[in-house]
Amino acid sequence: MKKKTDQAKILVEALPYIRAFYGKTIVIKYGGKAMVDTRLKEQFAEDVVLMKYVGINPVVVHGGGPQIDRMMRRLSKEPTFVEGIRVTDAETMEIVEMVLGGSVNKEIVSLINRQGGKAVGLTGKDGKLITACPLQSGSGAGTELGQVGQVESVDPHILSSLQEARFIPVISPVGVGRDGNTYNINADLVAGAIAAALKAEKLIILTDIAGIYGEKRRLMSTLSRKDLQRLIRLKIIQEGMLPKVQSCLTALEGGVSKAHIIDGRTHHALLLELLTEKGIGTEILA
Amino acid sequence: MKKKTDQAKILVEALPYIRAFYGKTIVIKYGGKAMVDTRLKEQFAEDVVLMKYVGINPVVVHGGGPQIDRMMRRLSKEPTFVEGIRVTDAETMEIVEMVLGGSVNKEIVSLINRQGGKAVGLTGKDGKLITACPLQSGSGAGTELGQVGQVESVDPHILSSLQEARFIPVISPVGVGRDGNTYNINADLVAGAIAAALKAEKLIILTDIAGIYGEKRRLMSTLSRKDLQRLIRLKIIQEGMLPKVQSCLTALEGGVSKAHIIDGRTHHALLLELLTEKGIGTEILA
Amino acid sequence: MKKKTDQAKILVEALPYIRAFYGKTIVIKYGGKAMVDTRLKEQFAEDVVLMKYVGINPVVVHGGGPQIDRMMRRLSKEPTFVEGIRVTDAETMEIVEMVLGGSVNKEIVSLINRQGGKAVGLTGKDGKLITACPLQSGSGAGTELGQVGQVESVDPHILSSLQEARFIPVISPVGVGRDGNTYNINADLVAGAIAAALKAEKLIILTDIAGIYGEKRRLMSTLSRKDLQRLIRLKIIQEGMLPKVQSCLTALEGGVSKAHIIDGRTHHALLLELLTEKGIGTEILA
Amino acid sequence: MKKKTDQAKILVEALPYIRAFYGKTIVIKYGGKAMVDTRLKEQFAEDVVLMKYVGINPVVVHGGGPQIDRMMRRLSKEPTFVEGIRVTDAETMEIVEMVLGGSVNKEIVSLINRQGGKAVGLTGKDGKLITACPLQSGSGAGTELGQVGQVESVDPHILSSLQEARFIPVISPVGVGRDGNTYNINADLVAGAIAAALKAEKLIILTDIAGIYGEKRRLMSTLSRKDLQRLIRLKIIQEGMLPKVQSCLTALEGGVSKAHIIDGRTHHALLLELLTEKGIGTEILA
Amino acid sequence: MKKKTDQAKILVEALPYIRAFYGKTIVIKYGGKAMVDTRLKEQFAEDVVLMKYVGINPVVVHGGGPQIDRMMRRLSKEPTFVEGIRVTDAETMEIVEMVLGGSVNKEIVSLINRQGGKAVGLTGKDGKLITACPLQSGSGAGTELGQVGQVESVDPHILSSLQEARFIPVISPVGVGRDGNTYNINADLVAGAIAAALKAEKLIILTDIAGIYGEKRRLMSTLSRKDLQRLIRLKIIQEGMLPKVQSCLTALEGGVSKAHIIDGRTHHALLLELLTEKGIGTEILA
Amino acid sequence: MKKKTDQAKILVEALPYIRAFYGKTIVIKYGGKAMVDTRLKEQFAEDVVLMKYVGINPVVVHGGGPQIDRMMRRLSKEPTFVEGIRVTDAETMEIVEMVLGGSVNKEIVSLINRQGGKAVGLTGKDGKLITACPLQSGSGAGTELGQVGQVESVDPHILSSLQEARFIPVISPVGVGRDGNTYNINADLVAGAIAAALKAEKLIILTDIAGIYGEKRRLMSTLSRKDLQRLIRLKIIQEGMLPKVQSCLTALEGGVSKAHIIDGRTHHALLLELLTEKGIGTEILA
Repeated sequence: MKKKTDQAKILVEALPYIRAFYGKTIVIKYGGKAMVDTRLKEQFAEDVVLMKYVGINPVVVHGGGPQIDRMMRRLSKEPTFVEGIRVTDAETMEIVEMVLGGSVNKEIVSLINRQGGKAVGLTGKDGKLITACPLQSGSGAGTELGQVGQVESVDPHILSSLQEARFIPVISPVGVGRDGNTYNINADLVAGAIAAALKAEKLIILTDIAGIYGEKRRLMSTLSRKDLQRLIRLKIIQEGMLPKVQSCLTALEGGVSKAHIIDGRTHHALLLELLTEKGIGTEILA
Repeated sequence: MKKKTDQAKILVEALPYIRAFYGKTIVIKYGGKAMVDTRLKEQFAEDVVLMKYVGINPVVVHGGGPQIDRMMRRLSKEPTFVEGIRVTDAETMEIVEMVLGGSVNKEIVSLINRQGGKAVGLTGKDGKLITACPLQSGSGAGTELGQVGQVESVDPHILSSLQEARFIPVISPVGVGRDGNTYNINADLVAGAIAAALKAEKLIILTDIAGIYGEKRRLMSTLSRKDLQRLIRLKIIQEGMLPKVQSCLTALEGGVSKAHIIDGRTHHALLLELLTEKGIGTEILA
Repeated sequence: MKKKTDQAKILVEALPYIRAFYGKTIVIKYGGKAMVDTRLKEQFAEDVVLMKYVGINPVVVHGGGPQIDRMMRRLSKEPTFVEGIRVTDAETMEIVEMVLGGSVNKEIVSLINRQGGKAVGLTGKDGKLITACPLQSGSGAGTELGQVGQVESVDPHILSSLQEARFIPVISPVGVGRDGNTYNINADLVAGAIAAALKAEKLIILTDIAGIYGEKRRLMSTLSRKDLQRLIRLKIIQEGMLPKVQSCLTALEGGVSKAHIIDGRTHHALLLELLTEKGIGTEILA
Repeated sequence: MKKKTDQAKILVEALPYIRAFYGKTIVIKYGGKAMVDTRLKEQFAEDVVLMKYVGINPVVVHGGGPQIDRMMRRLSKEPTFVEGIRVTDAETMEIVEMVLGGSVNKEIVSLINRQGGKAVGLTGKDGKLITACPLQSGSGAGTELGQVGQVESVDPHILSSLQEARFIPVISPVGVGRDGNTYNINADLVAGAIAAALKAEKLIILTDIAGIYGEKRRLMSTLSRKDLQRLIRLKIIQEGMLPKVQSCLTALEGGVSKAHIIDGRTHHALLLELLTEKGIGTEILA
Repeated sequence: MKKKTDQAKILVEALPYIRAFYGKTIVIKYGGKAMVDTRLKEQFAEDVVLMKYVGINPVVVHGGGPQIDRMMRRLSKEPTFVEGIRVTDAETMEIVEMVLGGSVNKEIVSLINRQGGKAVGLTGKDGKLITACPLQSGSGAGTELGQVGQVESVDPHILSSLQEARFIPVISPVGVGRDGNTYNINADLVAGAIAAALKAEKLIILTDIAGIYGEKRRLMSTLSRKDLQRLIRLKIIQEGMLPKVQSCLTALEGGVSKAHIIDGRTHHALLLELLTEKGIGTEILA
Repeated sequence: MKKKTDQAKILVEALPYIRAFYGKTIVIKYGGKAMVDTRLKEQFAEDVVLMKYVGINPVVVHGGGPQIDRMMRRLSKEPTFVEGIRVTDAETMEIVEMVLGGSVNKEIVSLINRQGGKAVGLTGKDGKLITACPLQSGSGAGTELGQVGQVESVDPHILSSLQEARFIPVISPVGVGRDGNTYNINADLVAGAIAAALKAEKLIILTDIAGIYGEKRRLMSTLSRKDLQRLIRLKIIQEGMLPKVQSCLTALEGGVSKAHIIDGRTHHALLLELLTEKGIGTEILA
């Protein structure tokens, strides 16, 4: 009986959060270990479906670097990177699109469906969701990167149509240019742009680290945009964390209320962040 | 962290139930200790609001015998009962209506509102919800009971209008006859009739006992309608439990899938019944 | 035949008014003799139902001072007033709420229903309709008045939901504070605030006097807001008429087009005011 | 004041009828003196507009024999009739259509609009409302009648579209055949067919006689279908009354609840029939 | 097979135009030879129906000068004109209304219906579509013109209601004044005013000339508003072309994107203008 | 000018077909040469977009055998077939899903979007569109085929949601079993099942042959179901044509009106079939 009462208490503790997020859109960047570990995968799907049932509109954006690498190697093509960005010649682009849109995306869709949700997978091509242009990188890397792109605009019509019909959109980070070319885009940046276009309530980035570390390697639970910019200037935030942080800034500038970088290795990380008092990881304020 | 993970796990354990009851109507007879104990009252309100947020449509029917007795005594009128039924002369009827519709009902409405719900209180007069007629009791008690009534018909239009607008209806068991008279009706029976009229998914009766006891005073966790009728015939079910059981039968005959008699003294009894695996009290199958 | 023709002529004379008020909301403060005389009560209900059928949206706000006094005395509690305002300790508040919400309100609901309308009774608690705060009276009376309140805000969602479904709302002047306390509010002032919140076409206050008297006790048929303020300054308008006049000013400032103070003792006073050429009582222009 | 009270009383006496006809469709055959006398014309328009405002959906069907005769004579063409039916050669058809659709119809539309309604004129061609075929008369008159037709089918879509947008349809009795020909149809019969197609609540035929006279020239206030058939057999009903009676029978067979033949020379005949207790003329029961 | 391929190619060449005009309103002034030649008439109707099916909302405005003249003469009344405008005494007005609304309009409606459309004919009286006032002509002609009017305002509600229900409106250029008088209005000017009121995508005027001729009698394919005003000043545009050009200017000033004056004698002139690359006649830019 | 007139004439010849198919769903199996030849691909996309614009709801189902073979060989895996069916072990299934859903599907989506449509790609997993089970083949081939499936049920909700929002669904023939396994399904059979589930107006199968050949290798333009069954029995229809024919029978049994097997190598084959008088290929009647 004691267990039961605890159970009820915990459900009720979630109530203020459920109330606060009712009818709101939350964009989730799904990646890292949470996307490979069987148990974490199931928990992620459970969390997304529960969100849907309690009235939240989750939108999932996923990456798939390791899966792309693996397929490239099976096709005897060595992945190469410039400053952390995958060099994407035409053949690589084809593999990227195929692996993300045909394999990784459908696996996530299936995962969510098995938990009782109704997911629909999309790439940026479907419903003209993402119009892309070649990445304008600060460095001179541009041309040698090939079909690496960035989000030029988002047409959210397909997302709102799916949400109205109670489907959960799952998005692969592939865009199409006005030139008709297909572009490989960083999934973090797609998530930020989608969150901004939807004026989402929150952007949550699942990653394999506890959150953002500040000076003296202290884990920061809350950061302002200004704090963030200082940490970038001080090169305390760097490399793989940079696109995630950039994604958060894009979202916040676009009208999103809060962005979160949380540890996807934690069991039910999403629910913990959303429906319990303390939250986890680092939150970045608008 | 351990606590957090447990928290998430419990939320997720509720998922199959949330899924199953999504968009369904559940009628709750609220009464007994759960209606007087401060903490149980709050928990009841939390449970009802949580139900609403996870997509269930709760409809609350309440009684208020003790409150009526108290007010009658303050007005120097001694409550009298025949076979457990309150003798209701015109003056008593006035007090019953005033106490239930003006005091008890509004307290419950307020309780739910404070937890973030939006409740609207009704008596059977509002929106012509309950048409009543004099109680046709088996015994000859009839005439001496005065304005004691039974449900003749239910017009659920006001309930569906409130539900569409996301309000939670809270109903006092007072009806109005074709003769224009006001009638005092047993709250259990009103709950059963409302559940039948709404083709509710479930009827849940909160009471001050662990459930229905069968032969050898064994607490029964599941009963068929046939079992129930046998227990009535054997007079194992009697007195105060009779209208509750009758309410369940009315509901089940009217198309409700399951009826429950549960212990309102248990913390968060409603949530436990609805959102955890084992449920509590006695369930009666259609 | 002559009678018949007259009948038709009168119906047709109402046409320009029916046309003008089609789809508009009209808030009616119901009180005084029209609320106790059996024939006037029935006529009031007929008028409200006819309004509904010809496409007007009536909203009724009622008081109930005499009924409260009577119940207080039955409970051996002497009503006391400071500057015409009922001193409302906790016990009085309970009685006020019970009498208004459970007895007076339901009687009006029933009255309207018997004429073929579908009324739904509400207090300020239902659907969080009226948020109140303690009355900020000009005089130092404040604290000794107890739970006397004033309208802080109105959430009209429940009213619009009921109107869409063709119900007639009937409102008791009881509000709930952010502090969770229940407040007793002057019904005239509630009617004015409701009219303002709904941007009603008209506010009509039924009272036991022919209208507003100006200088030399001349009955005024039309007054501007400025006229009114002058009459208040000159103390020609005073006492019981003050809250009525204040209610009108609140409504007009809130966007209502016209306010009327009319004689509820006249047969079918509402219809006469609305659907005949000359109108009755005093109209106050925005 | 006395006058005022009477006024209100009469409005209220209409309430049960307004209630009963709320949302219902009533088809009115407009013709005879009511269509030429200036005052009767205005009263007709007032009645129709009032009906609309109190929630009834009037549909007007009109004839125009005298106007057609007049125009034919101006064009030096003598009207000829066989058994009361206008012989309609191609030239006559053109005149009929022009006079009915372009002149009479628009006058009625304008009349109603001036009283505050929003009428829209139609012939059977508009929206493919009336498909006609050559009149299959019992007698051998057929071929010599030319383009005289009867209703083959009614497509009520245009009528329901106009009603939804709160317009009042006014219909000229001209139809179009599958052969592409235009047909002149008896207006009474069109009214009956339209009433049947709309499953109208009532069909009301305005004519220049007090109602149907039975044996011994007694004015009948109520007749069953059987009574009617007997009166036809006995040739008590004959000539000009025959199509009116046939129209009523068609309507009743098509699901209309009641048909009325009333005296259009009575002031406000429509309102008297609809909104007062005794009604006028003859009613024929389904 | 060759023919077939050509057929498909032509359909596909129309695609960009179909896309561009999807859901847009196009007002067509129908008149001249296209309104008398049997084959051109049928082609016009085919074009209008095809427009409707490919998602365009056509609105037809027609004239009927020759038909009016003919009827006047049959009634022994000689048509007279002042500066090209028909002198319209009361009797003429009656004839104009009858011929346009009852004869010409219904013929066009029938024509369109036979091609599979669903047309509904209107004059400016129906649904209070066109409110007119006496023509304020620059010259002193005014009074002697009689009931010649100009558009004062357009109430497009009846048009949008018909469009929503997929009907095609066909409008006769007759208006009604606030004074209750009927007015005869130039059909070109009505078309321009309707196009402006609907914020149509295009106004297309079918006429019996190849387009607008500029200096040296050169056919102009494109003109700006400024060009047009210069041509008027130079009296190169004059007489019958003036109201057409004025209609275009009214439309463009009212927010219409483009106006066209095209040759109605060309087979399928409408489709050519709308769905092929080069268009025909003269286009006038906003 | 001559060319222009022809152009218009051809557009108008399409009108009866556009009218007939307005608002109807047409399922297209896209495959063969039409899916590889650059010009045919573009024409296919133009045809689909034009269909959408003229009010038809196209649903595209595609295969991709050659693309799968190519990718398998690049991954050093030799495709093997049993009775024409691809042996699909787990690794092959992964490749099939990836190539169809991630590469072929997105290419078609992009193709349609470039022509001005808004396509959305789906596999049977998205929105739980296709539930599959292992293929129950008549022969004993069953087990050795691996994850080859057949359609068990279709949930068309995602298709109707996309159609309401004016998107064009493009479907890859991959399903998911109740067992959670992914299944490779013959695209022809998926098209038939989808057509049946949607009660489509037509199923059109694009293939690389002129149609169905009957006895004496005569090309049949029309066949009844019975004819078809006879041709199968006589082994005149065999091999690759069998699933196409089976797909047609499934569709017709499911309520589809007509099925067509047409030559996808013909320019604009779809438009020719739909919008011209004679049609192409073989039609099979219900």
